[in-house]
Amino acid sequence: MKLQLALDGTLSDSLALLRVVRADVEIVEIGTPLIFREGMNAVRQIRLVVPEAALLADLKIMDAGEAEATIAFEAGCDIVTVLGVTHDATIQGAITAARRFGGKIMADMMQVPQPTLRAETLLKMGCDYLCIHTAHDLKVSPLAALQQLRQDLPGAPLAVAGGIKLETLAAIAALKPEIVIIGSAITRASDPLQSVHAIRDAYEQLS
Amino acid sequence: MKLQLALDGTLSDSLALLRVVRADVEIVEIGTPLIFREGMNAVRQIRLVVPEAALLADLKIMDAGEAEATIAFEAGCDIVTVLGVTHDATIQGAITAARRFGGKIMADMMQVPQPTLRAETLLKMGCDYLCIHTAHDLKVSPLAALQQLRQDLPGAPLAVAGGIKLETLAAIAALKPEIVIIGSAITRASDPLQSVHAIRDAYEQLS
Repeated sequence: MKLQLALDGTLSDSLALLRVVRADVEIVEIGTPLIFREGMNAVRQIRLVVPEAALLADLKIMDAGEAEATIAFEAGCDIVTVLGVTHDATIQGAITAARRFGGKIMADMMQVPQPTLRAETLLKMGCDYLCIHTAHDLKVSPLAALQQLRQDLPGAPLAVAGGIKLETLAAIAALKPEIVIIGSAITRASDPLQSVHAIRDAYEQLS
Repeated sequence: MKLQLALDGTLSDSLALLRVVRADVEIVEIGTPLIFREGMNAVRQIRLVVPEAALLADLKIMDAGEAEATIAFEAGCDIVTVLGVTHDATIQGAITAARRFGGKIMADMMQVPQPTLRAETLLKMGCDYLCIHTAHDLKVSPLAALQQLRQDLPGAPLAVAGGIKLETLAAIAALKPEIVIIGSAITRASDPLQSVHAIRDAYEQLS
């Protein structure tokens, strides 16, 4: 189980936070708002602070899959997200770019009407991870959707995001996601280092 | 009928092109790939070249509607896109940001399963435009989808995008979209100024 830290604030806040917590984070997510603000400059600046971590660009690609994924891989990202609701042609284009750069594609399952059916198709096409993701705007736990998909697809490589914090980590970890994505429970903690250590300790007990 | 020029190339190419064609364009679209590369720097640089044109940020918002739309409005955009497939809460958040800044929201109808039903909801919520948009990755004309939506919703404020060029403009214009979005037919023309003039002349005859 890997810890992915989602950075959605300003670039300077994100860089300052990363300098504090970087030793405990395996995947650093350059969040959609951060990309909207800074573009690939955010990726390049963050790479300087975490030379070893995997970088994920949360592009949520909806069209022009190959061209858009290429932008992030060329900037040094390791994983790029596409929306599960988009066309197969777009997913396939993003996967083509990933293969060319030795990168990976995560499909975000937000708003996918039939998650299990779509998940099977996405995995067959070559998506590396499926992200169970309840929208920030809804404030709903992703647990129920994760449970359902884990039950239907026991071996699928799942990531999970949506307001996860220390208190809700055990129930999530029991469902064996490969990646747990945490944002505000670290980025908005009064003591981010204490928060990331507590989460990391819980991870080690739960993994 | 307004002409929206979609810029998806590099920032320097886009700025150079804009200096040539700016007199004939009413809305300048900062395309998704350009935002991924440059962030809001693209908006600020383009604003310097077209102080009068409306600027549209093609964010294709899928989550965090209010926060993400605010990023583009604060940078000086007039119109921001959201995905029609996203949650109502996200659409509502984007509209809240638009009202605060005196801006507008365009909902992109890509991959919406029941376009007419969803279009009615989006308009009731306060979306300013609905964009009939066939994906770049599919190379399909948006004409049939535009015809259907115009028939079902005669007065709806529609925009249309998807490989439109001089030769296909008349059929599109007959359906009275408020905005016609043109990208490669201008940006990749051997003579962009000649191309934009030809399209502009056709517009004036067709409007």
